[in-house]
Amino acid sequence: MRAEIIAVGSEMLTPLRVDTNSLFVTERLDEVGVQVRAKVVVGDRREDLAVVLRSALDRADVVVVIGGLGPTEDDVTRDVVADVLGMPLEEHPDLIERIERRFRARGLEMPAINRRQAMVPRGAARLENPNGTAAGLWIEREGRYLVLLPGPPRELEPMFEAVVRDRLAPVTGAARTYRRVLKITGRSESHVDETAQPIYTKWAGVDPTLDTTILAVQGQIELHLSILDTSRERAEERLDRIAGELATALGPAVYSADGRGLEEVVGEMLRTRALRIAVAESCTGGLLASRLTDVAGSSDYLERAVVCYSNRAKTDLLGVPEALIREHGAVSAPVAVAMATGIRDRAGVEIGVGITGIAGPAGGSDAKPVGTVMIAMAFAGGSLVGRHQFIGSRQLIKFQAAQAALDLVRRWMLEEQPDRLETGGTRARPRG
Amino acid sequence: MRAEIIAVGSEMLTPLRVDTNSLFVTERLDEVGVQVRAKVVVGDRREDLAVVLRSALDRADVVVVIGGLGPTEDDVTRDVVADVLGMPLEEHPDLIERIERRFRARGLEMPAINRRQAMVPRGAARLENPNGTAAGLWIEREGRYLVLLPGPPRELEPMFEAVVRDRLAPVTGAARTYRRVLKITGRSESHVDETAQPIYTKWAGVDPTLDTTILAVQGQIELHLSILDTSRERAEERLDRIAGELATALGPAVYSADGRGLEEVVGEMLRTRALRIAVAESCTGGLLASRLTDVAGSSDYLERAVVCYSNRAKTDLLGVPEALIREHGAVSAPVAVAMATGIRDRAGVEIGVGITGIAGPAGGSDAKPVGTVMIAMAFAGGSLVGRHQFIGSRQLIKFQAAQAALDLVRRWMLEEQPDRLETGGTRARPRG
Repeated sequence: MRAEIIAVGSEMLTPLRVDTNSLFVTERLDEVGVQVRAKVVVGDRREDLAVVLRSALDRADVVVVIGGLGPTEDDVTRDVVADVLGMPLEEHPDLIERIERRFRARGLEMPAINRRQAMVPRGAARLENPNGTAAGLWIEREGRYLVLLPGPPRELEPMFEAVVRDRLAPVTGAARTYRRVLKITGRSESHVDETAQPIYTKWAGVDPTLDTTILAVQGQIELHLSILDTSRERAEERLDRIAGELATALGPAVYSADGRGLEEVVGEMLRTRALRIAVAESCTGGLLASRLTDVAGSSDYLERAVVCYSNRAKTDLLGVPEALIREHGAVSAPVAVAMATGIRDRAGVEIGVGITGIAGPAGGSDAKPVGTVMIAMAFAGGSLVGRHQFIGSRQLIKFQAAQAALDLVRRWMLEEQPDRLETGGTRARPRG
Repeated sequence: MRAEIIAVGSEMLTPLRVDTNSLFVTERLDEVGVQVRAKVVVGDRREDLAVVLRSALDRADVVVVIGGLGPTEDDVTRDVVADVLGMPLEEHPDLIERIERRFRARGLEMPAINRRQAMVPRGAARLENPNGTAAGLWIEREGRYLVLLPGPPRELEPMFEAVVRDRLAPVTGAARTYRRVLKITGRSESHVDETAQPIYTKWAGVDPTLDTTILAVQGQIELHLSILDTSRERAEERLDRIAGELATALGPAVYSADGRGLEEVVGEMLRTRALRIAVAESCTGGLLASRLTDVAGSSDYLERAVVCYSNRAKTDLLGVPEALIREHGAVSAPVAVAMATGIRDRAGVEIGVGITGIAGPAGGSDAKPVGTVMIAMAFAGGSLVGRHQFIGSRQLIKFQAAQAALDLVRRWMLEEQPDRLETGGTRARPRG
């Protein structure tokens, strides 16, 4: 079955607000195998809603209309639905009583305009709203289902849960949508797509159908896989298998197959291996530390971070020799290594990270243009350093540099520090 | 003129992603008086996009299609537009060359699939994309305008700016939407609303019509004012006057009337007063430093930052006495002050900031629940410290704490360090 969601409200057509109710509705529809094929936002004009509603009823099995059920002149959904479907509106006296009771319970009298909320298209079923005065409506017409819901999430959500359970699940059949997201770093979109194509092709003709989407987000790539299937077991097994094949083909560029961000993945790896980390940031300005500390429990492995924008801070806090900065420049591989080594030694931890670069928009040169970033990592017995060239805004360069630093640590752990729990080691903390 | 925006991409029909490009597009259309009447999100299926595109072309003067211009099989926008409008696709050799050059500049060879991006419907005008391989397209048909743009914001935004300036502005009428946003911190939504009501009421009957919206974003309040008018001068003068009245009524809680974030406002104030700052963060984990360094040129006033998650780091890096931590706990006013004083002294700057608290979800107690944050500031001759209680997720608590720290510094500068340029002082750097 296919669905279309219509969100009604002029405020969602301004630059200020976005419709988010549809995410909740989509998730619930997914669970009963109903696929959302389009979402529309429309204002409070009757003629606009009528056009959108007619074309949705033309092509979708389930149409969910959100909002426009309040008591004011702007609330046009009831009228437009009655009109488009040719179902005359009737006043339900028990609904008026119910609304009056809600007002009385707060010591208020029901304003006259709230009577509008008791108008119901003939033949529609009412949906109870425990958290507000606007009743929802359920209409069946020629094998299609129309659901009308109020906009406030705390009213909409319990009402839609009940609709899905009691009314949609019985008519949708047993199929459900199952999903996987592979997150990938350090590869271009076209490279990932080329690598993934043979695997998509292999599964293209196989039932149940695999749906795939490739997405570039802040310079990172995501592969979205979904399967609509009547058997949970078969779908999950199939998705695991395809995700596994993609992960093998793409190699360690895949850092997550369960929705987690890179900071969560790296945090979990540090915890499992009982490694602690300290970071020295110049051009990322604290973003790497902030991302690491977005993860609950990160105080277990992040010992400290320093942001040393000035050369003096690099010398004071990390012991980077002034002569080294003079000789190579603050943005140089030797300085990045000295920062990583300096913070590791001073914090007394296993892993030190050093980042120095040019976030822009000013400060670039021919030899080191804006976006040039040196990222180093220090560990017991050695160090690694790489030169990167990122493009984009100051914020995007900061993000990509933090991402590359996290990935450097992740790849080093994959090779040098295989999971101690899996390899029969202990949780004892190594002393570097 | 009325517009419709179509965002193409199956990922925006999942529970994982929402279309936000349309907010930017709406804002730019506003500026040339074009009203968005509907927004649609549709997946990568050709037949679905064709239906949505046909009905948009039926009822809108301007149709903006975002996404689906990439090189992969999923990128169907070019094909569907050519099909719906009956404009055959032609390969543009100079576009291929341009794309090849972009790949070569990164030392890569152009994958064969990228040739798809050089296909252009006959009669369409190309829109230059300085930040990517996907060219945009501009099509005029029977008095209607169709704009095709790539999905990544950094590609879309400059391209749409240019389209509005060079192609849309000349064909729209003289009315434009003018806006002001007042940003407010440290006040509740209802308090701001109550204070603003008399001013709204005063201007309610006056032509041109004032539109207002109050919005709570991450615990901060924004007041949005807009006026649609044919006279720029009249609209701007009116908005300045109303914004001025609101700013007077709300007092120093208003930190920005020009869209700038608090980190930009504070950065500019530091620069004007020739003050330097250093910050010591515990629970905000680097977020304050990262926000300060999101502003270009922040190396002029941010000397250093340290994130001291461990007690040892607080002692090593800031000289916070171990006994003080033992006596009062790491989350305490005396420790926050010691952190602020410690970082100020060691960095040799005028202003030091110290933040220590419990970001959660674990670590709270009855006396200091999750969200308890102590924020201190040290300056020549003294210090300030406050206890805050924030609510929300770990990330939201971090954000609110960073916001409160920036606001503490802002309010101190307003009172103690009035703008030296305005008061006839010099730019000489005070030594604290």
